[in-house]
This record gives sequence, C-alpha cells and structure tokens, in this order.
Amino acid sequence: MKKAVILLSGGLDSITALAIAREQGYDCYALSLAYGQRHNAELQAAKTLARDANVSAHKIIPLALDLIGGSALTDDHIAVPDHPGEGIPVTYVPARNTIFLALALGWAEVLNARDIFIGVNAVDYSGYPDCRPAFIEAFTALANVATKAGAEGGRFTIHAPLIEMSKADIIREGVRLGVDYAQTVSCYSADANGHACGVCDACRLRAEGFRAAGITDPTRYFV
Amino acid sequence: MKKAVILLSGGLDSITALAIAREQGYDCYALSLAYGQRHNAELQAAKTLARDANVSAHKIIPLALDLIGGSALTDDHIAVPDHPGEGIPVTYVPARNTIFLALALGWAEVLNARDIFIGVNAVDYSGYPDCRPAFIEAFTALANVATKAGAEGGRFTIHAPLIEMSKADIIREGVRLGVDYAQTVSCYSADANGHACGVCDACRLRAEGFRAAGITDPTRYFV
Repeated sequence: MKKAVILLSGGLDSITALAIAREQGYDCYALSLAYGQRHNAELQAAKTLARDANVSAHKIIPLALDLIGGSALTDDHIAVPDHPGEGIPVTYVPARNTIFLALALGWAEVLNARDIFIGVNAVDYSGYPDCRPAFIEAFTALANVATKAGAEGGRFTIHAPLIEMSKADIIREGVRLGVDYAQTVSCYSADANGHACGVCDACRLRAEGFRAAGITDPTRYFV
Repeated sequence: MKKAVILLSGGLDSITALAIAREQGYDCYALSLAYGQRHNAELQAAKTLARDANVSAHKIIPLALDLIGGSALTDDHIAVPDHPGEGIPVTYVPARNTIFLALALGWAEVLNARDIFIGVNAVDYSGYPDCRPAFIEAFTALANVATKAGAEGGRFTIHAPLIEMSKADIIREGVRLGVDYAQTVSCYSADANGHACGVCDACRLRAEGFRAAGITDPTRYFV
C-alpha cells in the first residue's frame, strides 16, 4: 500500500481529501499544525476525525505562527470580519499553505511517501492565493528539486482533489464516502466546543454548500 | 530603507549573508528556527550575532522538526558521521530549507518586505539538494504565486549571495565586512559552549575554508 501524507485541519475540506485518499487506496498519515489559530476547536476536531478515519498515524506539530501574525486567524488585534469584503480577506495567513506543504513534504520524505494530499479549493473559497492550481503546480516543481528523494529521481505528487469542485460537490462526495461532517469545524470563531458563529466567511461558504447540496447542515451553531 | 528577512542559523554562512544584506543597504530582520537541532549552541550564537549586527528585529520560532526526524541533526538515533560518505549525507534534514524559506516568506509578507536572504552554498557544501540554484529558482517562482503580495503584483527575490562562492571566498568576504567568526558555530556536534568537534563534515569544510583563505581559524575546538 502506498503511503500518503494528508494535511488535516479539522475542517470540512481536509477530511474529505483524506476520505478520497483512502478510497484511492493510500495508507494515510495525517498531519495537523497547531499554529496558534483562534479556532483551536478545529484541532480537537482533527484528532477525532483522524481517529475515526483509522489513519496509520496522526502528527500534530506546534508552530507558533502568532509570532509572525499578520492575519485575523493568528493575531488577536485583527478582527474576523462578519461579512465578505473586497479582495483577499484578512483571514489570509501569510504563506500558510506553503509552510504546511513544506512540513508535509519533510514528513513524506521521512516516511518514504511520494504523495501529499491537501484540501484546497479554488471555487467556493475565500480568494486565498495559496489555494489556486498555479500554487499547487509551483509547489510540486519545488518539491522535486528541494529534496533528497527528488534529487535521486523520486517524483512527488501534490494531490488537490477538491480544487475544481464546488462546496456542494465536496459535501456530496464526502457524504458518499461516509464522512461525518458534524465532527468538523470550519468556523473562524468557533467556541471551545466547536460550535460555529454562522456569520464568518467560512460559516457562510459552508452553509451555502449544504444548502446547494440538498443535505441537512449538521453544523452546531452557538446562536 | 528596504526591509529584508535574513535566515540566520548562527553558522558561518548565514551571518555572512546578513553582512552582505546590510552592506547592500537593507534594513535587516533576522529569523532563526529552534528546530530541535542537536547543535543548540548554534542558536545561542545566532542571538549574539544578531545583537552584534544591530538588526531591527530577531525572531526565533520554535519548530519541533524532531517530531518528524529523519536526520542525524534532528533524530538522536542517527549518528553524525565523522568522515565524508557517498551521496547526500544523513545530516540532510528533510525539506529544511523549504520549511525555513516558507516561514521567512510569511514574515516577509507581514513586514511588507520583498527580499529574503539565505546563506546556502553550492560549492564547498555537503551536497544538500536544497542548497542548489534550481531550488532557489523554484522557491522564487512559488513565492510569487503563493502569497497575497505576489497575487497583487509584488515580486519576491530570494537572495543567495554565497551560492557560487567557495568557503574561502565567503570567509574573505565576511572578514572584509567585519564578521567575527569566533562567534559562529558550524559544528554538528558542538557542545553547550559552542566548542566544535573538528571532525564532522561541517567542521571539515569550515577548517579547509580558513586554511584556503589564509586566515587564522578562530574556531574553538573541544579537543
């Protein structure tokens, strides 16, 4: 069985990416980052989801991105907006997916895995630059020159199976694969129990996805 | 004054890269990673060097790469070799420079800096894949699609001023710029006081560099 490293945030997208990797026959190694995010309930969700998905290992690496700041998700002085604005929102975390994929690449190399899954999506998304196909392509090119495995002829594949799917399609696919979305946390301002605000960008996209998919939204809201 | 983020390890190369950035007129922000490396004395050296170089800020981000392991520098079960071997050595840390540059990129974006300096060298080096010009080029391409700054038209430059220099050239340049190499720690097995073993790959390359440069080696050895 081929090994794959899957970036698992605890949100809706990444667990769907994991379910897809599993269906494709990969031996799954989940990687989560404790990066000082406001919505720490997401990490608790990641633990539950990884356990329920019966992954071969789940690693949580602490990484204090709040030391860098620059995002509403990592800096308490920047508020999470309650309505969509113009351009790339303040919830963008500088270089986040670059940092996460770099760590996934390091672990993949140690595991002798050549496949990495990331649940980025460029359709119903917040406009983050590091969710686009061009980003995935550039990271793949980098991975193959940056590593010992690449220098010795190995080829890494960065799988972004959700990248062209609508949120509704993602949800339908996850439901088909048995994902329990009640266990996932997407909200940027989730409380300690993983209950969602219902008004932030992430909540809005998620709720619209369930509506469009015609599937009852299992999200637990705190209002 | 243009800002630049400089990756500062505490070794010989990175402080020379910082001295070059300063001479080129950059306002310098030093970034070090506490990544579970064996040679923790390197980090102490980074603090002293950053202070002496009068940088605008020095950030040390803890990042437990020992959770990933896979290298003699991050896994106690893998010994640091005392003589050069074939191919890429076991001191290679999987995806290290990718991870470090990703973090530097995140901080650069927050600082509104577009310049990053890294002291990699592809001449008198250990054969690490993430020290080659192709790696720097691939990371630059990535940086410009991965970030909000890049998506909005900004252009990042990854400066690797030492990449084509011999170790002797690097040392001569650093001495010209006033670098005090007695404060630097290169040894993979340095003791808590920063004294060097004299036999590992890093010690060997460094000692040969001083010899070839015709400059007295200020390294403090413990034997």
